[in-house]
Parts: sequence; C-alpha cells; structure tokens
Amino acid sequence: MPSISNKGRQMPESPIRKLVPYAEAAVKKGRKIYQLNIGQPDIKTPQTALDAVKNNDIEVLSYSHSAGFESYRNKLAAYYRKNEIPVNSEDIIVTTGGSEALLFAMGSITDPGDEVIIPEPFYANYNGFATASGVKVLPVEGAIDNNFALPPISEFEKLITSNTKAILFSNPGNPTGYLYTKEEIEKLADLAIKYDLFIVADEVYREFAYDGVKHHSIMSVPRLAEHAIMVDSVSKRYSMCGARIGCLVSKNKEVMATAMKFAQARLSPPTFAQIASEAALDTPDEYFNEVNEEYTSRRDLLIEGLEKIEGVKVASPKGAFYCIAELPVENADVFAQWLLDTFEVDNETVMVAPAAGFYSTPNTGLNQVRIAYVLKKENLERAIKILEIALKEYNK
Amino acid sequence: MPSISNKGRQMPESPIRKLVPYAEAAVKKGRKIYQLNIGQPDIKTPQTALDAVKNNDIEVLSYSHSAGFESYRNKLAAYYRKNEIPVNSEDIIVTTGGSEALLFAMGSITDPGDEVIIPEPFYANYNGFATASGVKVLPVEGAIDNNFALPPISEFEKLITSNTKAILFSNPGNPTGYLYTKEEIEKLADLAIKYDLFIVADEVYREFAYDGVKHHSIMSVPRLAEHAIMVDSVSKRYSMCGARIGCLVSKNKEVMATAMKFAQARLSPPTFAQIASEAALDTPDEYFNEVNEEYTSRRDLLIEGLEKIEGVKVASPKGAFYCIAELPVENADVFAQWLLDTFEVDNETVMVAPAAGFYSTPNTGLNQVRIAYVLKKENLERAIKILEIALKEYNK
Repeated sequence: MPSISNKGRQMPESPIRKLVPYAEAAVKKGRKIYQLNIGQPDIKTPQTALDAVKNNDIEVLSYSHSAGFESYRNKLAAYYRKNEIPVNSEDIIVTTGGSEALLFAMGSITDPGDEVIIPEPFYANYNGFATASGVKVLPVEGAIDNNFALPPISEFEKLITSNTKAILFSNPGNPTGYLYTKEEIEKLADLAIKYDLFIVADEVYREFAYDGVKHHSIMSVPRLAEHAIMVDSVSKRYSMCGARIGCLVSKNKEVMATAMKFAQARLSPPTFAQIASEAALDTPDEYFNEVNEEYTSRRDLLIEGLEKIEGVKVASPKGAFYCIAELPVENADVFAQWLLDTFEVDNETVMVAPAAGFYSTPNTGLNQVRIAYVLKKENLERAIKILEIALKEYNK
Repeated sequence: MPSISNKGRQMPESPIRKLVPYAEAAVKKGRKIYQLNIGQPDIKTPQTALDAVKNNDIEVLSYSHSAGFESYRNKLAAYYRKNEIPVNSEDIIVTTGGSEALLFAMGSITDPGDEVIIPEPFYANYNGFATASGVKVLPVEGAIDNNFALPPISEFEKLITSNTKAILFSNPGNPTGYLYTKEEIEKLADLAIKYDLFIVADEVYREFAYDGVKHHSIMSVPRLAEHAIMVDSVSKRYSMCGARIGCLVSKNKEVMATAMKFAQARLSPPTFAQIASEAALDTPDEYFNEVNEEYTSRRDLLIEGLEKIEGVKVASPKGAFYCIAELPVENADVFAQWLLDTFEVDNETVMVAPAAGFYSTPNTGLNQVRIAYVLKKENLERAIKILEIALKEYNK
C-alpha cells in the first residue's frame, strides 16, 4: 500500500474542528450545545445579496475572469477608496474566500523553505496554508495582559533571516479581537521597509471595530505601496461565510502578476457567489451600524460575564467577534473535551476553542480558550452561566 | 522594494490564457473571434440545477461541512455506484472545482521535492498545482500517431525513483481526447502496485465517451483500492464551469484524512454551487444523450474538416471535447498570435491553444495546437474554413 510519508508536509489539524466528533456524540445524546467555538455569525445575510442570486438569469454557468468579474472589482475598488484604501480594479484579484487569498499571497512571495513571521496567537489556518506552501512560520508571542498588542519590534528583528519574506497579521485580530493602533501599523511599516519584507494584512474583520475606534489598513500607508498585501473576504462583513468569496489586494505589480498565475491555474472564483458579493456592496450603512451595535452589546455582556467568573482573565477586544480568555484549568484542551463528553447542566453544555492551536510555540496558551460572541444575547448569557458552573464543577 | 525571488516556485503561465491580451486587442478592433482555445461549453446548464439556486431559502449563508453537504455526498456516491465506482459518502470530499481536488491530492500524497509522473501532453494546470505544492513533474511523451495512447510502461519505469509518489493522468484526456482502454488501465494498475505508487485519475470528462466506447474508471479496479485517487468536477458534465464544484474520491483512509486537513484549512466549498450541483444529479439521462450526440457530430465535423486541410495531421479523439492537431507551421505559438494580431477573413479569425504548453518536455509539440469543439456546428464549420485560409496565407 502506498503511504504518505509526511516528511515535510505535516498538515496541521484545525484546532477549531478537532472537537467536532465529541460535539457530534453529545448532540446524538440529545445535548444542546452553545457554540462559542466558531466564527459563524448568526446575523442575516443582506437581502440584496440573496435576491441577486435568486434573480440571476444565467443559462450557461460559465467560468468568470480568473481575477473575478470586472464589474465586481470596480465596485469593490470604490468601496475600498471610500475606506481610505487607494486602489483600482487592477490591484484586486477576487479569490475563493480569504483562504485562497492567503494561499495565493504565500505562494506568490515565497519559495518552499522561506519564512513568515506572525504575532501569536494567530488564526490557526495560517499554519495550514504555510504548510501547504512549504513555508515555515516563526511566531512572536503576544501577551494577554496588554490585550495582545503588537509585541516589541525587537522580537521580530531577532527572527529575521535571509529567508524571511513577510510579516503576516490579522487586524482586527482573530483570535484576539485586538485592533492595531496607527502607531503600531507605522512601526510595522518601518520594519518592512528596513528589511525589505512584505506585510500581509488579513483585514477581513475591518468593519467590526467598536467603541468608535478607527481601523487602520496596511494599504493606507503610502510608503508601503510596494510592500503591502491585503487579504479580505465577504464572509464576516456580510455574514456570507458560505459564499467563499474573498480577495487579494496589492499595488505591487510583480506580486499581482504572480498571484494571477495562481488564479489562472484554478480558472475562476465561484460565479453565483460573485453575484451575491457584488450585490452585497449595495448594503446600506445602517446594516453595519445595527450589526456593530449588536456585536458591541454582545461583547460587553461576554467580557463582563467572564470577568465575574473566579479565576478567569480575559483580554478586552476592540474588534472582530472573538476574545481570548485564560481559564483556571491546567489544560483547556482537556477541559473543552470534558465539556462535551462529560459535563451538562439541564442537558446543555458549551463548546469553546482551546487556544493552544492558535499558538505556534509549543506548550503555549494551554490554559486559554478562544470564545466567539456570535450568539444572541440570551444564549450568550446562558452559555456564560454554563461555563461558570462547569469551571466550578471541573475544579472541585 | 521587496522582490519575489522565484528561486524554486516559478509558477508557470497558463498556455490557454497567455494569448488573451492579443484576443482582447483583436476584439477592440471589432474582430469576431471563434474561440477554439478553451473548454467552456456553450451547452445550457440543466434547468433543475439553475432552479435549485433560484429557489433556495437561505437566510444566513453559512459555512457548509468542510467535506461538503452530507446530502450531496450521499447522492454523489449513489451516482458513482451507478457508474461502477463502488464508493460511499465518506470516500468523497467536495472541493472548489476539480482544481482544488488536484491541489489536495498533490498536497496530501507528496512532500516538497517529491515527483509525479504524467503522460504528456497533459492538462497544463497540472504544472501549476505541482509548482504551488513544490512537486516536480516528470513527463512521459505520448505520440500523435497512436492518438496519444498510453506510452510503454517501460518509459514510466525509467523515471521512477524513491521520490516518485504518483502517476497522474486524465481520462478521457485533456488535451488529447484519448479514452484509455481497460488493458491500459490494468497496466497502470500493475505499475502502481509494483512500485507502491498512487494513481491520480482526473475523470472530469467521464460522461463524454463517444462511439459507444465505455469509460473505465481507475476506481473500478478492486486491487487499486488503496492506490486510486479520483478527481472529478461538475464543470463539464453539467456545463457548470462557473459553479466551481469538484470532488476528491478515494478509498484510502490515510489519503482522505490528510486531504480533510486541507479541506478544513479552507473551511468549506461554496454553498450556492453545492445546491446547484446536488440538484444537477437529477438531470435526466436524455440530457447526456443529447449532449453526447451533439459533441459526437461536432467532433466528426471537426476531424473531417481538419483532415481535409493540407499538411494538417489530427489525433482521433474518443472522448472529452478536444483534439490535438499538428499544423504545417514551425511554431504554433507564433501562428496563434498571428491569427489574432494580423490575420482576418471578413473581419473574423480563430483562436487556438498552442500545444507546447501542454508538454513539460521543452521544445515539444511546437507545431501542435489543441482545438476544443465547444462551438455550434455552423460556427465550427466556419472556424475550420478560416483556419484553412489562414494556414494557406501564413505559408505563402
């Protein structure tokens, strides 16, 4: 039998998904699970996007342009310009989710064996895309005590070698909810220019910035025009995770020409989803205002609730819809599994994402979990209560 | 400015796309182009698939299972069993096009630096997926004189090293239209077992087998259960290229578990397109009968027409909707460009795909082109006439 050697390409398992079998078993036992583990919003997709798909008049569902509909790229460029991101349609390649944009970015700027530096904890699938591309991830550890702000630049500099091609980060952060300040973006810009590195910024949560704090895009720094690569997606912005539409954005012509070869190899992004995404750009501002109000109040409820639980420490998120919480347990992985296979209150339990999978440094974040606030407030309230009872029982 | 070193990962340009700028310039001049260069069928997508999308009742367009809808995988497994491919839903991962299935297959069975052997000419994007994965392609040259039948097994054996992980081929062939015989499949099976190699069969044109000749799937060979990996797609079968839905199929649990990690990293295949693909399985058999009749008559028209042109030699295809033709020119690349930027008859011209890009061996197939018969018969007839006139004028 031929075997998979996995000498070099040891594809990591998604930490968000590895509890799924336990959750499935719990559901089979009739248990109700409050899912705090995934970033699947419960917010309705804008009707204008759904209607556009229902009203399509396609007869032959053909390939689109490999870079995506030109009409969509034009409209998207206008959206970015409104957001102080000065780009045109030729600076955009529409991708199959932000995932594919990350894969194109890594593939375009690296050769196998190259290195990318990422502040941790970070979106776990960065590991997967790096592994798929034969790229090594070097983490710089962030701290819960300063809400996972940008680690000192000297920590990045220690890791830079001739194989370092880029700094990658998400802003607002997944899993941290951290929103980078203008000063932090400037520091990263200086670093990129000093060492001639690319900066890949995953800005899929751009619209989810709370408390009136402004989001600062890497694309808005003029001196970074040749260094900045932005990854974006409609998944969270319009609650359209299932569309699988994202994009890669850069003013660097060489990067875009190379990324275009990756885009052409896979032919085109999905057509129906592009129709939905193009229409979604007509979503009125009040949709975002309402959504942000909803997330802000959920966040406040969650953070306040978690802080009241004995032994829990929580980072205060300013964006996205996640937070990292430190729990009074030794191993959050074991605890998360116990929540699913042993614990229950009135036949209900909660599912959280152990945070160790968001760290690249071994044995880090072992007592932390990522909690997503994508549930209605009454459910979120109940979920926090269940978590409180569970921690008491677990530590008895 | 940071630069792309491209030491190792020199992403190849798609040979099908590199003429596009010339075509765009020709269109701007008001020229009509008969596109014989791409595999975009003009056949209508089955109404049942289009209607399913129009009638969807989605309110939150959420992620699907990373392996695709369970309902779709069950129905797909039943379709395969009807086609003598004995698989269940757990042997299937739904992918974003056959493209992603190829990427998952390569990523799962190789480490960077490993090798895959492919009979050439082959689907040019195999090069792209191999490059993206850091895998080396070793070609075995086929011959136009035997319609690109399986090259002698000894030619494969010459290339096998400890780094060889798989044989990859498409059946029916793109760009050759060749349909492998049962004996050829058996020979490949013996080879795979002898050297413990995977066989990756791209069978996206399965339904396009003409003249009553049966298609033999690699998945139908019982002793290959652990070696066989099938790549499939709805793109051509239901004229749904824009859906971007394919799948990876294998009975090898280790392969599927590894491929699942790639699937989880990119979260899920597109939802609307899965709805369309699941409904497409209800397409009545008469749709395929009509489509195959249409393609058969187009093929007959094309082959007969090409054979009448002086100096043209053409391989006789039994499947898919392509053929490779040898033209009385020195360099088909230069000729194809000339067709677009210089030549015209009554302000019309044709676009063909130079075949050199389908070969991995340098300076091979230089006088060949791939012609797709995806045009209505009257257009195909006109296109052949234009090609004949062009060749005469070019060789004056």
